[in-house]
Amino acid sequence: MTTPPVVERHLFGPGPSNPYAEATAALGLPLLGHLDPEFLRIMDETCADLRTVWGTANPRTLPLSATGSAGMEAAFVNTVRPGDVAVVAVNGLFGERMCEVAGRAGAEVVRVDHEWGRPIDPDRVAAAHPSPTVIAAVHAETSTGVRSDIAALGRLKGDALLLTDAVTSIGGIELRADDWGIDVGYAGTQKCLGVAPGLAPFTISDHAFARRVPRPQSWYLDLGLLGGYVGGGAGGRTYHHTAPVAMVVSLHAGLRRILSEGLEAVWARHAEAGRLLQDGLQELGLELFAEEGYRLPELTTVKVPDGVDSAAVRAELLHRYDLEIGAGAGAYAGSVWRIGLMGRNARPDAALLVLAALRDVLHR
Amino acid sequence: MTTPPVVERHLFGPGPSNPYAEATAALGLPLLGHLDPEFLRIMDETCADLRTVWGTANPRTLPLSATGSAGMEAAFVNTVRPGDVAVVAVNGLFGERMCEVAGRAGAEVVRVDHEWGRPIDPDRVAAAHPSPTVIAAVHAETSTGVRSDIAALGRLKGDALLLTDAVTSIGGIELRADDWGIDVGYAGTQKCLGVAPGLAPFTISDHAFARRVPRPQSWYLDLGLLGGYVGGGAGGRTYHHTAPVAMVVSLHAGLRRILSEGLEAVWARHAEAGRLLQDGLQELGLELFAEEGYRLPELTTVKVPDGVDSAAVRAELLHRYDLEIGAGAGAYAGSVWRIGLMGRNARPDAALLVLAALRDVLHR
Repeated sequence: MTTPPVVERHLFGPGPSNPYAEATAALGLPLLGHLDPEFLRIMDETCADLRTVWGTANPRTLPLSATGSAGMEAAFVNTVRPGDVAVVAVNGLFGERMCEVAGRAGAEVVRVDHEWGRPIDPDRVAAAHPSPTVIAAVHAETSTGVRSDIAALGRLKGDALLLTDAVTSIGGIELRADDWGIDVGYAGTQKCLGVAPGLAPFTISDHAFARRVPRPQSWYLDLGLLGGYVGGGAGGRTYHHTAPVAMVVSLHAGLRRILSEGLEAVWARHAEAGRLLQDGLQELGLELFAEEGYRLPELTTVKVPDGVDSAAVRAELLHRYDLEIGAGAGAYAGSVWRIGLMGRNARPDAALLVLAALRDVLHR
Repeated sequence: MTTPPVVERHLFGPGPSNPYAEATAALGLPLLGHLDPEFLRIMDETCADLRTVWGTANPRTLPLSATGSAGMEAAFVNTVRPGDVAVVAVNGLFGERMCEVAGRAGAEVVRVDHEWGRPIDPDRVAAAHPSPTVIAAVHAETSTGVRSDIAALGRLKGDALLLTDAVTSIGGIELRADDWGIDVGYAGTQKCLGVAPGLAPFTISDHAFARRVPRPQSWYLDLGLLGGYVGGGAGGRTYHHTAPVAMVVSLHAGLRRILSEGLEAVWARHAEAGRLLQDGLQELGLELFAEEGYRLPELTTVKVPDGVDSAAVRAELLHRYDLEIGAGAGAYAGSVWRIGLMGRNARPDAALLVLAALRDVLHR
């Protein structure tokens, strides 16, 4: 059995992105036990740093031991009882998914549809039902590259709990969970946080925790049980499940990397890389998909030109330049590309490279 | 901010164990996209190698994107509808947990209790109900260090589906899912497979898959949806969630390590290390907890001698020798130690070291 050569890719799709070097190096550290005092210290620091990137003081802020989609499930199963009303703003694939996950938790789902590629309308969402238990929306739609105004929704939420998907926004653009009135938020590690996929950074306010479902249908994602392990203080830790130690240590290193640069400086770096890319794509004659004014700098959607084979271009980029960009999502699978410059890749050289590679392949 | 020194531990508790060097090295490889053809190839090979360690031909054999406890949840939510009868053999903490997880899936749980430290009685379990939907049992109880006879239960299961927890047995002792009649099995990566925690190797037979719950309460663990991503062939992959790429690549390397040594040779290595440890502990005058004839070689339980402070000994082992052993579980937290020699640590030198360290600390 010969060892094949190591494949090195530029991960410029919708995620995962190439991790920060610090995050990758941390994966190779000697493994610790999940109850080791040294690991518990790292876990505590990780939770503290997650509070910073979430913009929250919530004591219950932690990395769930699964990917971002499990974060979505945790958000709903811990807040929604059968028959409760969940108003869901849908302007892309992840809003769609919220409806499905909320439905499986027994919610009466009131979906408020928006055109893909446009932001949600907070007034319309807030007016969809007089007394929902939860209102849910995606901050940065990974399927369309659109940013929505969560702060506005927070001002209109009334007595409902506001659930927010921040998978593609956390660590890349402004996110202020407490100021914006987010009660429950979930994210992923593999996009702007610059860490491999595998964990779901999660936060829940004391208010939402007090209103939580006492025995949710998921044991694994039961926040009442998880609280005994994370944030209970070193003395009061109780075993729930074996934490994914290596991934947590890697997240810890990625967060330290971000906070040593400075969170606002990291946001500015994403903004700059995204601007370079979006300007450059338009100079190439390409048309952006997301509505102007609501475009995510970290994830750009661009229309595939008429007569161009979307998949063939992506395959050629991968084959020729080891460069991954993403297909579109849902109905736009063949007509939109998604280009992410996230985390470690939010750099001018990355923008330059993807533009040069696209120019080459399109004009070949 | 100064960098603290790297902490290196001997992980001789009930898991995680120190990973194989190959598994750790793989974590540091350049990250791949979760839909990259190269990653899909690695995923396919991982699933194939998992079939070998499970002893199954089940096409639906895959690493779930969460830890072993999520594997337990996946087993129940995909097979049990509200009101279905789940017979659960309980002879330790993980049998207890099965009852809780099955209950949250809506099952009518018929628990068959056994004394902790003893194996399950397959006849008694099979006779507990005339027509259960599922029968569930733990192959290797991590809480007590006891092996139970799953093959015997498989012969008696009748029309029920047999659900088996192989978290601490997979890759360490004989496990033959197909020969034994296991319909649904779940495991973990962080014990005898010698990989960091974070994935749940899972297998489900075609027969059980055909009888599955069509829309389980968990979207994340819905095997019907997962099947489109894993094992659908490169052409038919559909996106479900972002796979934890680095962990899967690490599992792939760990499995290759095991299979290049040979699965039966690895079992023999675990048997030998466990025998050395268990003989040595008794020579030290200590009494083993698990019943003779049913002791796991990979995880040894030993009674804390009268008058000895269990936690103080563990702390001293950690402080003096960077050596972790585990406390007991449940009611035995202070009266039993759990010593794991699993995966990479299933070696004579590891047995020698833990014996010497215990002798030193106990006689100090």
